[in-house]
Amino acid sequence: MAKKCNEKIQEEHEDRLLNEALSVIKHKIFVLSGKGGVGKSTFSVNLAVSLAAQGYHTGLLDIDIHGPNVPKMLGLDGWTLSQDMKDQKIAPFRPFPKLKVVSMAGLLPSDDSPVIWRGPMKMLAIRQFLSDVSWGKLDFLIVDSPPGTGDEPLSIVQLIPDADGAVIITTPQEVSLLDVRKSVGFAQKLNLPILGLVENMSGLRCPHCGDSIPLFGQGGGRKLAEDLGIPFLGALPLSPSMPEHCDQGKPYVLQEKSDELIEAFEEIRTRLMEAVNCKA
Amino acid sequence: MAKKCNEKIQEEHEDRLLNEALSVIKHKIFVLSGKGGVGKSTFSVNLAVSLAAQGYHTGLLDIDIHGPNVPKMLGLDGWTLSQDMKDQKIAPFRPFPKLKVVSMAGLLPSDDSPVIWRGPMKMLAIRQFLSDVSWGKLDFLIVDSPPGTGDEPLSIVQLIPDADGAVIITTPQEVSLLDVRKSVGFAQKLNLPILGLVENMSGLRCPHCGDSIPLFGQGGGRKLAEDLGIPFLGALPLSPSMPEHCDQGKPYVLQEKSDELIEAFEEIRTRLMEAVNCKA
Repeated sequence: MAKKCNEKIQEEHEDRLLNEALSVIKHKIFVLSGKGGVGKSTFSVNLAVSLAAQGYHTGLLDIDIHGPNVPKMLGLDGWTLSQDMKDQKIAPFRPFPKLKVVSMAGLLPSDDSPVIWRGPMKMLAIRQFLSDVSWGKLDFLIVDSPPGTGDEPLSIVQLIPDADGAVIITTPQEVSLLDVRKSVGFAQKLNLPILGLVENMSGLRCPHCGDSIPLFGQGGGRKLAEDLGIPFLGALPLSPSMPEHCDQGKPYVLQEKSDELIEAFEEIRTRLMEAVNCKA
Repeated sequence: MAKKCNEKIQEEHEDRLLNEALSVIKHKIFVLSGKGGVGKSTFSVNLAVSLAAQGYHTGLLDIDIHGPNVPKMLGLDGWTLSQDMKDQKIAPFRPFPKLKVVSMAGLLPSDDSPVIWRGPMKMLAIRQFLSDVSWGKLDFLIVDSPPGTGDEPLSIVQLIPDADGAVIITTPQEVSLLDVRKSVGFAQKLNLPILGLVENMSGLRCPHCGDSIPLFGQGGGRKLAEDLGIPFLGALPLSPSMPEHCDQGKPYVLQEKSDELIEAFEEIRTRLMEAVNCKA
């Protein structure tokens, strides 16, 4: 009985910590996809970096427990998270002014370490990443979730019931579009608003001859958004510079020279800001 | 007490069913990847189809509960699995002679339906896909697992302790190679032999001008395999025909005309057959 009582007190304490942490974050946006490898983490990183560059206090939470790639994309390989001696909270990475980043990668002893956890452990880890991190006051928290409709996305949606909504990333490939339908169904079942769909890897031009290469197709995302009655935020062309920047840990939105890709990204960000009633 | 006893009898019954099913399958091969979207399902489908075309009785099990794409890649959209009236077992799809396919997609009411299950439910489903399916005698069972080191790959490795081993798929991208290290660590922790690494989407040539396009890079897989001391099975070039075949539900190994991609695939299959001590 006493044990039960202690457990309940502990639970209430944890709920209070979580609510306190979330109450000072204005906008919470989930980045979801049905399928892996469609560029979800790349989008999340570039979105968070560009919001911070615009002057917004931004948090980026990578809840991909098994394959956390966000730090790599920010050039943060090998960093480890540390605990603040004063408030006992986990201190996020701060790769740029106004940007705070937390990822499972920062807790792993080495890049080779797999996290072989089943569902309930993941829920606990994700909860801690919200309540035990010194996020402080934020304008935006961008949550990069692993693909699909499993434990991680389910946990985060349940832990942040007042989120602005989800951005869903897809490629124009049929197999990716098929899985987007599932993500939309997932969001609807959980009453999570859908802020819009982004078509990534949309069309490729040969950098030598300029001809169009039909690699993953083009236009399927826009069509699907229309079919499903969800907003279409825009299409990002496939560009060799994107995976290159990604591998080098330099988000492409920070390039000095604008190009087709950056222009497309800016349009998407503007539409997304409108969707959450925020000035771009 | 009586309940406990009944549960135990049920458990023993289920274990017996599982062992019976597995005992008549000669070779069990897992296809794993650290990251999503690297072409794991495409590889699994083409491997299974090509083994069946070679005359081997082959089973293909798609344990991606949240995004089962295997049926789509075999042109099996909209099919549903059915139960055999005689032995109460689930009858697999039979898209080609000697090929049996089972996927979560065959149990879903529609393509829009997300499976919002936590870990323990997944373990149960995967166990049923092994023991309650009329696989019969097989030369090969190819298991297409979702990416990462979570519930699904963990479950299947535990359920099939005598598997030949795992083929790990990656692209040459750094973020994918990073996650391969985790898959290798996962296999090693679970004493699962690694049959080899495949580098997918390795190099792209413009179909118009023939020039090489540095999209996801090339060669990183071979180098990583050497570094980690695991066999390298080969590299598959990125070809616009691959996603196209995939979207059309026609495995590319069934093309009548051989090309660079098919030749590379055949080499990989030969090396894989050698790794499991089987004639190619």
